[in-house]
Amino acid sequence: MRPFELSLTAVAAAIRARDLSPVELVDSVLDRVERVEPLLDAYVAIAAEQARRAAREAENELAAGRDRGPLHGIPMGLKDLIDVAGTATTASSRVRAEHRAEADSTVAARLRAAGAVLVGKTHTHEFAYGLTTPQTHNAWDRDRVAGGSSGGSAVAVAAGAATFALGTDSGGSIRVPAALNGVVGLKPTYGLVPRHGVTSLSWSLDHVGPITRTVEDAALVLSALAGHDPRDPASLPAPVQDYRPRPGALGGLRVGVPRNYYFEHVDPEVETAVRRAVDELENLGARLVEVEIPMARYVQATQWGLMAPEATAYHERTLRALPDRYEADVRVLLEAAELMPAGDYLRAQRARTLMRQEWARMLAEVDLIAAPTVPATAVPADQQTITWPDGAVEGVTDAYVRLSAPANITGVPSLSVPVGHDRAGMPIGMQLLGRPFGEATLLRVGHAYERSAPVRALAPVV
Amino acid sequence: MRPFELSLTAVAAAIRARDLSPVELVDSVLDRVERVEPLLDAYVAIAAEQARRAAREAENELAAGRDRGPLHGIPMGLKDLIDVAGTATTASSRVRAEHRAEADSTVAARLRAAGAVLVGKTHTHEFAYGLTTPQTHNAWDRDRVAGGSSGGSAVAVAAGAATFALGTDSGGSIRVPAALNGVVGLKPTYGLVPRHGVTSLSWSLDHVGPITRTVEDAALVLSALAGHDPRDPASLPAPVQDYRPRPGALGGLRVGVPRNYYFEHVDPEVETAVRRAVDELENLGARLVEVEIPMARYVQATQWGLMAPEATAYHERTLRALPDRYEADVRVLLEAAELMPAGDYLRAQRARTLMRQEWARMLAEVDLIAAPTVPATAVPADQQTITWPDGAVEGVTDAYVRLSAPANITGVPSLSVPVGHDRAGMPIGMQLLGRPFGEATLLRVGHAYERSAPVRALAPVV
Repeated sequence: MRPFELSLTAVAAAIRARDLSPVELVDSVLDRVERVEPLLDAYVAIAAEQARRAAREAENELAAGRDRGPLHGIPMGLKDLIDVAGTATTASSRVRAEHRAEADSTVAARLRAAGAVLVGKTHTHEFAYGLTTPQTHNAWDRDRVAGGSSGGSAVAVAAGAATFALGTDSGGSIRVPAALNGVVGLKPTYGLVPRHGVTSLSWSLDHVGPITRTVEDAALVLSALAGHDPRDPASLPAPVQDYRPRPGALGGLRVGVPRNYYFEHVDPEVETAVRRAVDELENLGARLVEVEIPMARYVQATQWGLMAPEATAYHERTLRALPDRYEADVRVLLEAAELMPAGDYLRAQRARTLMRQEWARMLAEVDLIAAPTVPATAVPADQQTITWPDGAVEGVTDAYVRLSAPANITGVPSLSVPVGHDRAGMPIGMQLLGRPFGEATLLRVGHAYERSAPVRALAPVV
Repeated sequence: MRPFELSLTAVAAAIRARDLSPVELVDSVLDRVERVEPLLDAYVAIAAEQARRAAREAENELAAGRDRGPLHGIPMGLKDLIDVAGTATTASSRVRAEHRAEADSTVAARLRAAGAVLVGKTHTHEFAYGLTTPQTHNAWDRDRVAGGSSGGSAVAVAAGAATFALGTDSGGSIRVPAALNGVVGLKPTYGLVPRHGVTSLSWSLDHVGPITRTVEDAALVLSALAGHDPRDPASLPAPVQDYRPRPGALGGLRVGVPRNYYFEHVDPEVETAVRRAVDELENLGARLVEVEIPMARYVQATQWGLMAPEATAYHERTLRALPDRYEADVRVLLEAAELMPAGDYLRAQRARTLMRQEWARMLAEVDLIAAPTVPATAVPADQQTITWPDGAVEGVTDAYVRLSAPANITGVPSLSVPVGHDRAGMPIGMQLLGRPFGEATLLRVGHAYERSAPVRALAPVV
């Protein structure tokens, strides 16, 4: 296998065994970028020279015995909402044409300190306010949507154009593109990974997390990202831990299988693949328990009731100063929420409080919940709606956000893992939802699954 | 001294010395209620028979050696926003004419478990939405405002019609009436005392706390109230402690004295009395440090930007169903906020986040801050505005809330202690503001002050 094809775990081991050098790895990934980028448009900007220089530095440091850990010398993509000192954070928007970040975001600083090598900034749906990332093409079929808003990150990782990447997730923006491109995406517990220096969509729903090709890789990245930073007011002083999953059976674990909500209006091929994956968890020793998802009919109103006014508050000044620089789809969302009364936002806040309590009650009965990440695979780029077997028609955005939003509203962690492909060859994702700060459990279960039922995460592309 | 005149600390000691029985104490307080209540109207409802029965039970328990601690057998008033099983929580409003609480609020249950005896429910400005409590008369001059919204509780304690009472405080509603009636009021840190079962004014600003005649008494009550309750979503799992202040010098303590905000538009007699009290803290060994209050010009907009829409959200249904049952002053506030856009509320939320950070920075430099509680003493009941020496005219409500609101916005604890009287004989209060969960420090300083410069807290009335 060529270096760009290897998982983060594998390259980290190869580097430590002196079978691979950071320079070879970065060169391999940059060659891959050059080949696939014209087809996929995953990146806003590529920093090839800086990456080569950083790879040489990593190589020198490692040769001198200074090992920064498993991310040392590893090429990564960062969603272009994440500040990196001295570069633009464009948010894939013309609004940010003149932007230049003065300092690293917390996550960029932590990854830099861990020795990771920045390949480039990846495309986001403009300001993360959408679920498709129209600039970017799906890694498995370039005529289909990448998913979003972290579409560039998911496509880059799926195509071998980055060994790992970071995304952000306010309504599914890590997990949706991860599922649609057949890679792993982790939205951590609200407050676990600091968002200082990351452009906000909706501060009470925003999360930062890894996109990788294996669950083990996601654990390695999370270990570098997690930990308190008082500059993010929502950051929590949770204990830092090594999230690397230890192999083992799942005996005794109770896996909740939703009897409502998560399997409603779900494509039959998606449902079949996810139910098969759930059965595999049972084969691995888990006990399946039916659960009732509480307050399901409040999810959409709560998600939008929180997200829309917070997003508009963030964009207040630029929306007035530079309205024409926004894409039409984002501008209409931002402007619509200017008319929203405070009472609607407060109703959403109160619904969230109740939903968190109800979810905590549900998650006291099970260790995690398994469900589809998105109800359908990647649709053709020009498709606006999905028609369900019962005749109901749903907007693609509404469908893609529907099953991921509960984890944003409640703040619980959610890990999306690939569980197969549909007949068209498009990837299918299963999400594992856990208790607050239960990332270790999700990663252990996801890792056990991917070992027993491996799914190819690398898209062929060319 | 007659039992109703004694502090909680004193009666608790007398009961334990067998010099006083709960029955004698409760009878004394009920006699006092009968004498002063026609003049003061502190109570919504008096539960004389139940109180006598509870006093006998306490007496029997104590005789049998079952001592529930310092509140055992002590007569108290509870602001009529606080649920007590089987009684109405009227919130001093016709809206609640048919109300009946099914269960105790957390604080009522904790006080019941501690053996306290309920004398009655005390008046609040309707639904706590005001600073005067027009039903009730100031304990030192019945032609003057009681202050509010916990006016009934402060007046009852000042008049000897309760040995202690509870109030609630969303913009000053414990501290303002405490200061205006010459008693002690403590607004604890946000999240320290659970609000489950307490009618909300503004959930992100609401606090419950004690009103007493001495600082030591406030510490005894706080010890019974504090502690996590998951039924209040904002309740924090802070360690429960015994707050009783140990006597001692204040050597080494840094007391911040604001150079801006807290002494602007303050009555000269109030300023003189508070500065004299601050000097007394210096005499006791504290070191005075000038501090600059951050973001002072945002206080009023932030307080109202948070309070108004949250209050309206809480009253949404009854405001539609029973609009005529609200008093005109409260109804107009509730209806006005229906027109407020979500963006204004979010601006207030963001200002609060910044203000908390700035206050934390300021409070890292000092151990506490000393300032006036209210800028003026109790005004005549029909006075609507205050005219300051520079000609500025301020509404009484705005003036009374102005110096207390910062502690609600930031959540820091604030203790109001009496520091003297003006020439008209009206009480003056000083507030001590501390770090989150710094109640023990505030109580220690307040206690040292009241020992070295005692001020009469019991109003003569009759």
